[in-house]
This record gives sequence, C-alpha cells and structure tokens, in this order.
Amino acid sequence: MPQTTCSDLDSTPTMLPQAARIRIVMVATTHPGNIGAAARAMKNMGVSELVLVSPKSFPDPEATARASSAEDILAQTRVVSSVAEAVADCQWVVGASARLRSMQWPQVQPREMAEAVVDRANHNQTVAILFGRESSGLTNEELDYCQQLVHIPTNPDYSSLNVAAAIQLLCYEVRLAALQSLQVQTVTTSVDASAEASLATSAEMENFYAHSEDVAQAIGMLNPDNPRYLMRRFRRLFHRVAMDKNELNMLRGWLSATEKTLRKR
Amino acid sequence: MPQTTCSDLDSTPTMLPQAARIRIVMVATTHPGNIGAAARAMKNMGVSELVLVSPKSFPDPEATARASSAEDILAQTRVVSSVAEAVADCQWVVGASARLRSMQWPQVQPREMAEAVVDRANHNQTVAILFGRESSGLTNEELDYCQQLVHIPTNPDYSSLNVAAAIQLLCYEVRLAALQSLQVQTVTTSVDASAEASLATSAEMENFYAHSEDVAQAIGMLNPDNPRYLMRRFRRLFHRVAMDKNELNMLRGWLSATEKTLRKR
Repeated sequence: MPQTTCSDLDSTPTMLPQAARIRIVMVATTHPGNIGAAARAMKNMGVSELVLVSPKSFPDPEATARASSAEDILAQTRVVSSVAEAVADCQWVVGASARLRSMQWPQVQPREMAEAVVDRANHNQTVAILFGRESSGLTNEELDYCQQLVHIPTNPDYSSLNVAAAIQLLCYEVRLAALQSLQVQTVTTSVDASAEASLATSAEMENFYAHSEDVAQAIGMLNPDNPRYLMRRFRRLFHRVAMDKNELNMLRGWLSATEKTLRKR
Repeated sequence: MPQTTCSDLDSTPTMLPQAARIRIVMVATTHPGNIGAAARAMKNMGVSELVLVSPKSFPDPEATARASSAEDILAQTRVVSSVAEAVADCQWVVGASARLRSMQWPQVQPREMAEAVVDRANHNQTVAILFGRESSGLTNEELDYCQQLVHIPTNPDYSSLNVAAAIQLLCYEVRLAALQSLQVQTVTTSVDASAEASLATSAEMENFYAHSEDVAQAIGMLNPDNPRYLMRRFRRLFHRVAMDKNELNMLRGWLSATEKTLRKR
C-alpha cells in the first residue's frame, strides 16, 4: 500500500465521497451515550449515515451530550424495527463480531473489510456495517443478513470493545481505504457501474432464501432436528457469490419450476 | 504486508509481549470517564501501562465505571506531576496531535508510528505515546519531549477525536504492528493449504453441471430452442463462487432430493 502523507489526507473533502452509500447500523443499543459517541466517531471519519434498530432510548439527552458537535448526524438518524428493514436496500452487509464464530461465515480483518466496503461503494452499491448489543453482540439470526463478518483483533482475554470504540476503529479503516482509493482513482473509468448496480439487494436475497426453504421442505431436504442448518449453509454460499438480478431470477425460476412440476405429478 | 488470519491473531498472548515497554501518557485529563475508557481501550489491545500527568480527578468512581473490567489497568496506573517525569526513562516519545502543527516536528500516520514503536520496544527501548487535554491537546512545551508527532487522519472540519477514542485507535495500530512482528519472527506456516485443498475439483464441478442439467430437464427449465443457455449461465454463476466439497455435496443432495421426490409423486 503506497504511503500517504498527512497533508494529502487533510486536503480531502470533509465527508467521504462514498458517505451516502456507507451505512452504520446499531442493533438494540442499550446505552444512549453509546449512540452519541458513535455519531461523533462517524463524523470524525467522514461517515454520516446512522440507522438504529430498536434502540432502548432515542432521541435521548445523553446521546446528544456524547455526540459533542455531531448532532447533525443524530438529526438524520433513522430508527427502524428490524435488521431486515435496516439493510433491505443494501447490496453488501458486514457484521462486526467481537468473538470468532464457530459458524462458517467468511471472516476478515478490518483493513480487508474496509477495502471491500469502499470498493463496493465506489461502484454504486449500498453497504451496511452492523453492530450488535453492548451485552451480547449480534444474534445468529441477525448475522444471517451478513455476507461477511469483520473481527477486530483484540486481547483474547478481554475482547469486548465498547460499541462506539468498535465503530470508531472500523470507520477509521474505512476512511483510510477511501482516501487510498481517491488517490488511486483519479482518472480511472467506472466501467462496471451499471453492471454492479444490478446486484441483488438484501430484500431480494431474503425472498430467495424464503423460497428456497419452501422448496427444501417440499423435497425433504430439511433435517427436522435442525431445520435451520441447511439454510444457513445456503446463505453462506449465496452471500459469497454476490448474485446479480438476472442470476437471482434464474434461480427463482428453478425453484418455481420445481414446485410446478411437483404439483403436476 | 502479509495477510494474517483471524485465528492467527487470536492465538496471540493476551497482553502484548512488548507491553511492559509501551506506555500511554494522558496529560491533564479533565473528565475521569475518559481515563476509564482509555484503560478499557488499552486492555482490549493488550497494552497495560498508563501514566497520568496531573489529572483533574483520579482515582474517581466515573473512571472505574467506564473502565468496565479493566480496573487492573487503573490499579497500576501511576500519577505524576509533569511530562518530564512521565517520560524520563523512555528512549522514544511520540505525541498525538489532532491538528497538523505548523512547527517542524516529524509527523507520521498511525500505522507508521506503530511500526516504529513496536520495533523499538522489540529492541528493549521504552516508548511513550502522549495524549493531551480534551480541550486543547498538548502544549508546545510538552511536544518538545516528543521525537515524533502522530496525526490521526480525520474529517478536517471535525477533527477533534475523543481522547479515549484516539487511544483506542493508536493502541489498535500498535497491536496490529506487534502481531505482525510476531509473525515475521516465527517460521511461516502454510495455513491455508488444507482449506484450499477442500475446494471442489473441475471434474466434480462437471458432474454437478451434468446432474443439474438432468434435473433442469425434469422440471422443464431447459428451453428446447436453446438448451445450452441455462447451463452456461449456471456455470458462470458457480464458477465464480469457487465452492468447497461440502457445498458441492449440499447442492448435489438438493438435486437428488428433487429427483427422488418427483419419482414418488
């Protein structure tokens, strides 16, 4: 990675050019102070879009106090009631995980995550990074929306980062990657912009998974003792491939054809 | 920079081997909560030595509360009355600066700073990183003790990081540099050889495509005018994902279950 100098970095725009396509999602946050600290951390790094899933208390004076001068971020913050709603229009969803999961989600380090996030945002994809509860992080059901997990390397005996600190670290890496890409880009052509824009959204993928589960049930593929197991492996496979809408339609067609043929017999 | 895997990182010792030689110095901190948050941030990253220069209030219940389970760091924290005293035994002193100074200190980015800090600690030097007041940072007189300034790249319109957030970021970079140096020191292992070996072979993929075509035929998915079209799109999708053998078996199982169910009806 080429070195950048301090003066390069500070000559960049205040908010990242990709800011409108990079979303921070905080799930079921208990302490409003952490929401304010997160807004401050985001603004420090030029990231602006914050979505809260079922926060315990928001708006809240404590959030405003800890936000310091980042109330503008809080003023635009959206509150929704589910992770599905928070990421419905996103083409790429990353979950922040304090511990290493035994399950087989692809796991990356912050630097690698940030490069992918910025690259996708540069190609007009909307990207979300999910942060879980202070006490217990994200549930497996919430992680099911994620194509990738990012693990911040910490002291294994004391790995629980404050959620705003985790947001600070990941937004810092996103900023570094964005500044790097600004330098690299300059004249480079955005060849694939239209192709990339046709990637399936999270909501479309969820419909595909629901349809797959119906067909799996019909063909006896679900283990009654552990019906979720197959679908989780399915998600892992198809999250990784990042399908476009045509490919998704092909597979939906396959599922529909299977159902139709079963009904006929 | 060689890639490290998550499992590499989490197999490292809890406190960094260099911890005894890397000191965080907070100068004239006003809010005791920030001292607690700093202790937590340090412990998360395996850094343990904290020195306070003339804090407004310490020990303080708010520091303890924000430290979460990092009270052991606070218990060993020393309080001194001057920067000179805090860094007296150090061979290398770095000052964290929110703004770019017009003065002529050498200024580096966090990554470069961390590599130098770890390299020096590996060579038995004692190193300090100084953090200034919440309101106004370090004075020029305090910066005079520093051999280098480190500047965290931030939104130039909103550059004032919370002091604990700045400590979090720099300790994170120190941890990454320390882990990197551990890896370079040990004999390199071919970690991913076994993972790569479990990818499906070309022959296995061909069998999968042939099986898919049979089922596509059975469920009426093949266009009689252009039977190859579907399978070409299928190949394009599954070539891209690079399936492992388990995933391939899952999809072969899906195809077989479809055939079996069709026969039963």
